[in-house]
Amino acid sequence: MFCEIITIGDEILIGQIVDTNSAWMAKELNNAGIRIKQITSVSDDKEHIKKALDEARTRVDVILITGGLGPTKDDMTKATLCEYFNSTLKRDEGAYLNVKSIFDSRGLPFTPINQRQADVPVNCIPIMNTKGTAPGMWFEEFGKVFVSMPGVPYEMKAMMESFVIPKLTEKFKTPFIVHQTILTQGIGESFLSEKIATWEDSLPENCKLAYLPSTGMVRLRLSSVGDDKVVLDSQVKELIGKLTPLISEYIYGYDDESMEQIVGRLLKSKGKKISTAESCTGGYIAHRITSIPGSSAYFEGSVIAYSYEIKENILGVEKEILEKYGAVSEQVVLAMANGVKHHFKTDYSIAASGIAGPDGGTPEKPVGTVWISIATPEKTFAKKFLFGNDRERNIIRTNITALNLLRQELLKS
Amino acid sequence: MFCEIITIGDEILIGQIVDTNSAWMAKELNNAGIRIKQITSVSDDKEHIKKALDEARTRVDVILITGGLGPTKDDMTKATLCEYFNSTLKRDEGAYLNVKSIFDSRGLPFTPINQRQADVPVNCIPIMNTKGTAPGMWFEEFGKVFVSMPGVPYEMKAMMESFVIPKLTEKFKTPFIVHQTILTQGIGESFLSEKIATWEDSLPENCKLAYLPSTGMVRLRLSSVGDDKVVLDSQVKELIGKLTPLISEYIYGYDDESMEQIVGRLLKSKGKKISTAESCTGGYIAHRITSIPGSSAYFEGSVIAYSYEIKENILGVEKEILEKYGAVSEQVVLAMANGVKHHFKTDYSIAASGIAGPDGGTPEKPVGTVWISIATPEKTFAKKFLFGNDRERNIIRTNITALNLLRQELLKS
Repeated sequence: MFCEIITIGDEILIGQIVDTNSAWMAKELNNAGIRIKQITSVSDDKEHIKKALDEARTRVDVILITGGLGPTKDDMTKATLCEYFNSTLKRDEGAYLNVKSIFDSRGLPFTPINQRQADVPVNCIPIMNTKGTAPGMWFEEFGKVFVSMPGVPYEMKAMMESFVIPKLTEKFKTPFIVHQTILTQGIGESFLSEKIATWEDSLPENCKLAYLPSTGMVRLRLSSVGDDKVVLDSQVKELIGKLTPLISEYIYGYDDESMEQIVGRLLKSKGKKISTAESCTGGYIAHRITSIPGSSAYFEGSVIAYSYEIKENILGVEKEILEKYGAVSEQVVLAMANGVKHHFKTDYSIAASGIAGPDGGTPEKPVGTVWISIATPEKTFAKKFLFGNDRERNIIRTNITALNLLRQELLKS
Repeated sequence: MFCEIITIGDEILIGQIVDTNSAWMAKELNNAGIRIKQITSVSDDKEHIKKALDEARTRVDVILITGGLGPTKDDMTKATLCEYFNSTLKRDEGAYLNVKSIFDSRGLPFTPINQRQADVPVNCIPIMNTKGTAPGMWFEEFGKVFVSMPGVPYEMKAMMESFVIPKLTEKFKTPFIVHQTILTQGIGESFLSEKIATWEDSLPENCKLAYLPSTGMVRLRLSSVGDDKVVLDSQVKELIGKLTPLISEYIYGYDDESMEQIVGRLLKSKGKKISTAESCTGGYIAHRITSIPGSSAYFEGSVIAYSYEIKENILGVEKEILEKYGAVSEQVVLAMANGVKHHFKTDYSIAASGIAGPDGGTPEKPVGTVWISIATPEKTFAKKFLFGNDRERNIIRTNITALNLLRQELLKS
């Protein structure tokens, strides 16, 4: 069973807002076994809306429409649907009482323009808006289902969860879809695909693999469609079980967990503390660690040392080492990791020193050269990486690489 | 002249990613006088992509396609376009050298699967990818323009800015649009709109004002459309001249300059250095300062002090003050700013201590309470702010507020 999402409103087409509604809806519908064939954004324009509805009808069984239900003149959806279905408006008693109670509770006058929010086409089932004024509308016409909802995210979400998704899954007896996402770090998309080519080629018909790369990581998403959730769960489990050993050294987690969450969870469960000493990352590693609520349980603090003096005076890196090897060197990054771990009295530490760019490279140490050191209760080690030319991405890659090195050490402890 | 954006890729249709590309593109195209008629998201499916192209051709003059250009099997766009235009693939020398140099510079083997990234349909103009491997493609067929670009945001953005938008505006002789953006901080959208209501109501027909709020700031964009660029330039200049005195205390900059760039420029021009001492921001201020290339000229370093011990031992905040007033207090934040300025031997410093949330609030110090201190060569002062409940947004708002306080001090010096 396929579905199309149509969003109505100029604010998306001029780039004033990002369409987060569709992503939320798509995720929830997928989880309920309803596949999205297309997402279409059109303007507040009657003819354009009707054309989009005509086209959607040729593609899918269910058309979910958001937006354009406000009380002002630029909101066209209700009038357009009324025309499209050759219907007429009538006042809905439930919606009227709902709108009235909202206006009364805010002490606002319930004017005729606002009373009209309670009018709906006679051929629809009105959907109660528990979070706002404009009712939703469920139509069954031309052998298809059309649902119109407000564009306000929390109003739409409440309708989807309490009414639309339950009614769709009941009506269409939808197949199940089971997803599992594998998070990998330290290998590019194409090398990953070569490593798992045989496995990927032998995937059953009902399964699909997607590569989702972002800076410093690639997510692999396996989806399986069918009628029996228990069968699908075990199919996915078996396939993931075969995939894992092929790329185990690159896998750092599953599904929606971030590297920062995974590392934080490990530190917390082991009762260990961490600090960072950062040069090229300029505080980004500390920022990512502390973006997790509750990180104060395992994060003590950091020293951001851009200058030689601070590496020397605050982190205790010896002057001779700095002068002999330069700030971007194995010796210095090891001393930074040891220094911050010692001064901040933590169990682990991360240090990073590199040339983020765009300038500052030399033939021996080109832009993108980064040394990362991890100090554990037992040892301190460093690794050299050669990333790219982009400052922002070098910082992001250094962070995820450093946290993954730390994660691997935490797992050994 | 109308344009349609088609995004290709299952990840949007299953809700795994939010389509931020289209919003960015829509905004940039609008700035260039090109209007978006529709945004369509379709799956990695040949027939579906072709149908979307067919439909788009009936609506618009230009079809911009993103996504589906990766080297793996689920990426269908290039093969589909080749079929759609009844064309064949040939290796593009420029793209080949580009991909090869990327693999060489990273020390990675240049395998056949990656070499194929340099193949493009013979009927296209290849667009150099300065940020990645997959080339873009510009087609002129059926009296329309079709452009295919990667879905990776920074790759697409670089192509749009350097090639696609300039070529579209030249080809279609779009009317001139002159924009000026005013950056404000410390005042909400609705209060801003009250302050400038009379000015806004009297804007000429060909001018439009947009409010672009984001966390901690509101940008005001004035756009003026017409045929004579010189006339538009002077019109915008005059209107901005009238607007500025109405809200001068909130304006911190113009157009695309970020707060970090503005502060960095001021520090550099005055030959001054800065350090930060961060608690609730966890390194975010240092990260934002060092996100600017060349920031090592004025940024020395930071101490991120999550624990009392580090505030005491590294920053020199007196134990009695911490115990008497708590970490989130005027006394402590002043001591942090003085401490880091002293130890790091800088001219200025920023300190921040607050309750970022979601937990940790008390009736006296609810979540969102933040103390910010600025130390200058002459004095140190602190201000208290009450932001909201969201951890991420509290961190962002603290950063921009702190940098703006510093900016105001730099202007006085």
